[in-house]
Amino acid sequence: MPEPSFSLRTPEDDGIARKICDNCGFVAYENPKIVVGSVVRHEGRILLCRRAIEPRRGFWTIPAGYLELNETPEDGAKREAWEEAEADLHLECLLAVYSVPRISQVQLIYRARLQDPHFAPGPESLDVQLFDPAEIPFDELAFPSVHWALAHDASAEAGAPPLPFSNPPGEIGNRMPDGRPVAHGES
Amino acid sequence: MPEPSFSLRTPEDDGIARKICDNCGFVAYENPKIVVGSVVRHEGRILLCRRAIEPRRGFWTIPAGYLELNETPEDGAKREAWEEAEADLHLECLLAVYSVPRISQVQLIYRARLQDPHFAPGPESLDVQLFDPAEIPFDELAFPSVHWALAHDASAEAGAPPLPFSNPPGEIGNRMPDGRPVAHGES
Repeated sequence: MPEPSFSLRTPEDDGIARKICDNCGFVAYENPKIVVGSVVRHEGRILLCRRAIEPRRGFWTIPAGYLELNETPEDGAKREAWEEAEADLHLECLLAVYSVPRISQVQLIYRARLQDPHFAPGPESLDVQLFDPAEIPFDELAFPSVHWALAHDASAEAGAPPLPFSNPPGEIGNRMPDGRPVAHGES
Repeated sequence: MPEPSFSLRTPEDDGIARKICDNCGFVAYENPKIVVGSVVRHEGRILLCRRAIEPRRGFWTIPAGYLELNETPEDGAKREAWEEAEADLHLECLLAVYSVPRISQVQLIYRARLQDPHFAPGPESLDVQLFDPAEIPFDELAFPSVHWALAHDASAEAGAPPLPFSNPPGEIGNRMPDGRPVAHGES
């Protein structure tokens, strides 16, 4: 079996160069990735994870990671908190939408509470701790967006105005407003 | 050259089955896709495009499409409006975040105005028109999320509360709050 080998070429029906397999012509379309995460509060303190993996191993972050196929952002944020911190979250609302075009990321960050006080490091975390807001290790946070999210969460906690619209209650895009189902491929 | 051929198998360092090329072992990771779009107003009317492509050819939609690599959602929403309607937009704010897990989509929808009154059908549109809100062809809208976005835009126009936090002004995730650049791969 040959090794994977891709060249940058422009498909006939496209205006942008894509990675095309030299062996069989498969077009590897690349899309920006969606990161889902949460600022998690418990009794006035904030849950942070110390990263066990690169990039930024040893630095502190909020629980967050890549959304999987067929997952709602809310479910993904809860899954990541479980995987990284064994934390069972109640999500309150969408806190912020960030974009990091350099690495083709869009981040959806939620406000959350612990459903129960248990937490523990998952395989991608060296440590998990609750921090008093005044004791957050700001010099050891992993990413700019962790700073942003903690600042925005503090603003929201202090009474900043409400949050974005999202899907109507109970709707995940499977039916028209009159109840008719939509066909596969429609959004 | 063989045809592209993929089997669903679980890579060694992974817990989820991925599409792996039978010819060369390339792992085609699939991620949810980000759709960016806009509810566009001009002198009280709303810009809609009649789709020239499937799915839902012939139905009306707001200008929207897939975010490209290294593009901010705002730039993507403006690009899509240009491609589909030759419309030059001024984006006002993020209106809504929708998710459609069935087709692994997250949609970011903006409120926008026309920068100048020109518009015309692009290659993916049969027609582009401005509609008085009372004359929107609700029975001929392409997708549930077009209904949602038009309803949310009407709420916002009527004075509904403000919108989500987003990146701090001027920030695209390339530096820490103290100004230090972040290394490649960090977010």
